[in-house]
Amino acid sequence: MTYQPPVRDYAFLLRDVLALERYANLPAFADASMDTVEAILEEAGKFTGEVLAPLNGVGDKQGCTWHPDHSVTTPAGFKDAYAKLVEGGWPALGSDPAYGGQGLPHVVNVAFSEMSSAANMAFAMYPGLTHGCYSAIHVGGSDEQKALYLPKLCSFQWAGTMNLTEPHCGTDLGLLRTKAVPQADGTYRITGQKIWISGGEQDLTENIVHLVLARIEGAPAGVRGISLFIVPKFIPDADGNPGVRNSVKCLGLEEKMGIHGNATCVISHEEATGWLIGEENQGLKIMFVMMNEARLGVGLQGIAQAEAAYQAAAAFAKDRLQGRSLTGPKNPDGLADPVIVHPDVRRMLMDARAIVEGGRAFMAWTALHGDLSHAHPDETVRQKGRDYMALMTPVVKAFLTDRGFQVCSDAMQVHGGSGFTEHFPASQYLRDVRIALIYEGTNGVQALDLVGRKLAAEGGRGVMSFFAELDAFCDAEAGAAMAPFTGPLAAAKGELQEATMWLMQNGLANPDNAGAASTDYLHLFGLVALAYMWALQAKAAQARIDGGDSDPFYATKLTLARYYMARILPETATRLTRLKTGSELVMALPAEAF
Amino acid sequence: MTYQPPVRDYAFLLRDVLALERYANLPAFADASMDTVEAILEEAGKFTGEVLAPLNGVGDKQGCTWHPDHSVTTPAGFKDAYAKLVEGGWPALGSDPAYGGQGLPHVVNVAFSEMSSAANMAFAMYPGLTHGCYSAIHVGGSDEQKALYLPKLCSFQWAGTMNLTEPHCGTDLGLLRTKAVPQADGTYRITGQKIWISGGEQDLTENIVHLVLARIEGAPAGVRGISLFIVPKFIPDADGNPGVRNSVKCLGLEEKMGIHGNATCVISHEEATGWLIGEENQGLKIMFVMMNEARLGVGLQGIAQAEAAYQAAAAFAKDRLQGRSLTGPKNPDGLADPVIVHPDVRRMLMDARAIVEGGRAFMAWTALHGDLSHAHPDETVRQKGRDYMALMTPVVKAFLTDRGFQVCSDAMQVHGGSGFTEHFPASQYLRDVRIALIYEGTNGVQALDLVGRKLAAEGGRGVMSFFAELDAFCDAEAGAAMAPFTGPLAAAKGELQEATMWLMQNGLANPDNAGAASTDYLHLFGLVALAYMWALQAKAAQARIDGGDSDPFYATKLTLARYYMARILPETATRLTRLKTGSELVMALPAEAF
Repeated sequence: MTYQPPVRDYAFLLRDVLALERYANLPAFADASMDTVEAILEEAGKFTGEVLAPLNGVGDKQGCTWHPDHSVTTPAGFKDAYAKLVEGGWPALGSDPAYGGQGLPHVVNVAFSEMSSAANMAFAMYPGLTHGCYSAIHVGGSDEQKALYLPKLCSFQWAGTMNLTEPHCGTDLGLLRTKAVPQADGTYRITGQKIWISGGEQDLTENIVHLVLARIEGAPAGVRGISLFIVPKFIPDADGNPGVRNSVKCLGLEEKMGIHGNATCVISHEEATGWLIGEENQGLKIMFVMMNEARLGVGLQGIAQAEAAYQAAAAFAKDRLQGRSLTGPKNPDGLADPVIVHPDVRRMLMDARAIVEGGRAFMAWTALHGDLSHAHPDETVRQKGRDYMALMTPVVKAFLTDRGFQVCSDAMQVHGGSGFTEHFPASQYLRDVRIALIYEGTNGVQALDLVGRKLAAEGGRGVMSFFAELDAFCDAEAGAAMAPFTGPLAAAKGELQEATMWLMQNGLANPDNAGAASTDYLHLFGLVALAYMWALQAKAAQARIDGGDSDPFYATKLTLARYYMARILPETATRLTRLKTGSELVMALPAEAF
Repeated sequence: MTYQPPVRDYAFLLRDVLALERYANLPAFADASMDTVEAILEEAGKFTGEVLAPLNGVGDKQGCTWHPDHSVTTPAGFKDAYAKLVEGGWPALGSDPAYGGQGLPHVVNVAFSEMSSAANMAFAMYPGLTHGCYSAIHVGGSDEQKALYLPKLCSFQWAGTMNLTEPHCGTDLGLLRTKAVPQADGTYRITGQKIWISGGEQDLTENIVHLVLARIEGAPAGVRGISLFIVPKFIPDADGNPGVRNSVKCLGLEEKMGIHGNATCVISHEEATGWLIGEENQGLKIMFVMMNEARLGVGLQGIAQAEAAYQAAAAFAKDRLQGRSLTGPKNPDGLADPVIVHPDVRRMLMDARAIVEGGRAFMAWTALHGDLSHAHPDETVRQKGRDYMALMTPVVKAFLTDRGFQVCSDAMQVHGGSGFTEHFPASQYLRDVRIALIYEGTNGVQALDLVGRKLAAEGGRGVMSFFAELDAFCDAEAGAAMAPFTGPLAAAKGELQEATMWLMQNGLANPDNAGAASTDYLHLFGLVALAYMWALQAKAAQARIDGGDSDPFYATKLTLARYYMARILPETATRLTRLKTGSELVMALPAEAF
């Protein structure tokens, strides 16, 4: 069975849960009527399901090939699919119309991104990073740089990459050594080796725009001396077409556990010509535009792979006959019942639905706040949007990938022995999704970002605003129909608030307390966020039912919301207990004891 | 860094925690003085660390090769290592001296098995399955069969396999179709296709003894019509040497996510000559001797891979310089601190230790009960041994592999981006261990075995005996030194007892309640079992400290025990809450909704 894009669920989220049409009066949302959006979702579903999904296994098995002339070949079919992607203008849905984008709200783009990542994660990374490169230049580049690069990036004729990591430094970018020497013509000579560069070389596009972090000669040590450069593979000529070959080359590909269809490159800059973006020594600030966007995109990969893996598991569970139901045969004419009759199999499928559909709502809700942070006329709404984007980014990234990985593992489990073989797709989903817990800042780094920076930002304004929103919702929806959802939500929010207070008191006293508590806190936060998402979905579904809609889709949503509250959310208690033990036991042993 | 076998921890377990010398008066333990055992552990450590570990990565990268003549080549170096294994007589440590075994208690063999599996899981499976084949023939075979096969299996000159699964049936063996036609000479002609046969063909041994489940013509349908046959690759001649080639052949190898060094074969029996073991239609009973042994061995693989992955992660965390400690530089003269200074990294390493060393104790404790079930003169002790073996087998298998997989995933996370590349061993450990959650009965099947069969067996005698043992221990050790351990243990035992009562009441009312609760119940059980193991280890370590031993090994054990109680055990609350929600929500949606 091939991947079925969740068109219906996105339509429900955008129309009923997030009520996108509320914002129809804002210019940024003017073209996003639900009719338009639903038509886009349908077409996105077709494109990703029909063009990208069939190449997923091919990409895994073939991988990419490096050639001694430093070129790289992507798996069979990727080049054609990429051409169709460019032709359809898909990844530019949310980009600036001034440079050829379609100017739709980012929340619509999230739907396309999830579908393309679920259909073929390794493929979707190529345009994904290009979009990040586009955003960094859009925010930090000069007018000339924008005019030169953005149309080509926006059309995806050219690809973009992020060149951050070096062999001795990844998370700790302050250590980086790639150097930039200013030239008389205003350019720089960039020299250094970068590793783990996704899409650093490929045969899909006529040019590749590397964004490279480097240190200008004489710059301060550490993170305050890092600048960002544009280093194109081919230097654009006077007409803006690919011209002279720059001295940047791919020295080899990384062998990895998954995402074989994406070329993970060692990139050598050998006095390559680069152009500074923004000001000297301000490179990290601009790179973080790209990084934050990438982090949301990685959270999305967690959900995307989980959705695809769930679909494969559900299809297998309905097809595979083995054993009988504990409550009597359900397929009496067959040799056995399908394994979906077994409660423990059903548990894994229900867990998957609760995480995937709750996580999808969380991504879309966060993305909408991102849109409002730019597009809303009211500064209080814009401010809340900015606060939420900052606060939720590490949660979206780490919680959704940790849980997505678990869903992919359960999906393999549903397959039994078949899941461990490469004849079924379960292994690829599990291997592919695993990187999402690591790149763009490991999930541990996300947790530290949450407790160390995001919670306290602006005096805790973001998290207090979130608590107030939850309180208001629970108060407003305390009636009998919604109490099964708002009751557990309010209780879990109380635990999150208690954990937040504990962190503020004990993290100040000893920063290691915050570090030791960080992952449990992040998961507690994510559990509460998804509880809110399920309460919002329950409310929207109940409204449909009350309005006489008998589509079982809505009753299913209510069941899943109850399931989440009863069976997923109770984990908050363990998370709270654990984080309050602080750092003493975590740090009790000397390093030599390990 | 290469794998370091946990010789010291086993010496502590066998000498101080399980106090093996208590049983020195029993014939079966007569040769197992601690001096002997420690010498064996040292040698086992050398053999596995020096011979098997260096071939682990080779096996993963090369895999096995199938040839058109139906032969299979194992990875480079496996054949030599296997010869050394046979020469050392290692896997026969616990086997019957009547057939060439060394007759040591099985608990000593557990140490060797863990070490060899940690050093090279794919390799260790070859002798592992041979030992299972030995056990099945030892229990069910005729005297003639024993005389013919056991010496060769005991010396590992011949290998053994289990032929259970067919393309349409794995868990549900009642569906199997391989047929056996009786011949005038007392043999049977066996015809059918078997899949996923580990070590079904290889170049390590001069003969392979397949144990094959098949249905004798005219036998009843379902599980009551299954018989077990010996089908040797080469039929032994009059001298017991490999003679005529039997018509059993390998049609191909499975492509898998991990354990590439083990040949997972499609085996075709084409009127192969087989010999019935035991009586007609009693095959499953004998096969379960092999299966139960295999299940304990799979739980052991979970811990073994976790130990090896932990070691790799700890070494990386002490070596990799990145960022600074939250409480000020710990390596001020270096560019950065080693990542082990970060509390969230330390958390993952501490979790690993708590699971691995607790799980190892649980395996050894269970194995000792297995030994006592045969070797003790007192029938009440033997009975308790049998009860515990039956009760704990699904917990050892599923809990230790679920947790071992999590440890392997955390070990990859400690590595950051390096962990996802195949240059470091983290990926192999994670890919290899994943099968342990699936084969020999998926972990869901184990959970159902626990709640559906094992709990209620003999009127619940096993579980009641376990509760009584925990009560007696907590009462006896209620003093100040042990209260930090027995307090949490007693509370968690109360939760397990509550869950057990809930199951007895609600599982009878509706079997789906038991199915829906099964995995949470199994984890709750495992959490309590490991809490007991940590309390036992704390007691033994405290006794050493009270005796004036200043080796930091013992203080580390006390810290790890406190860590387990504070940070791992609290999960029981969530497990109890979840399982008590029953099956209603789990089963609420119709199958078509998935």
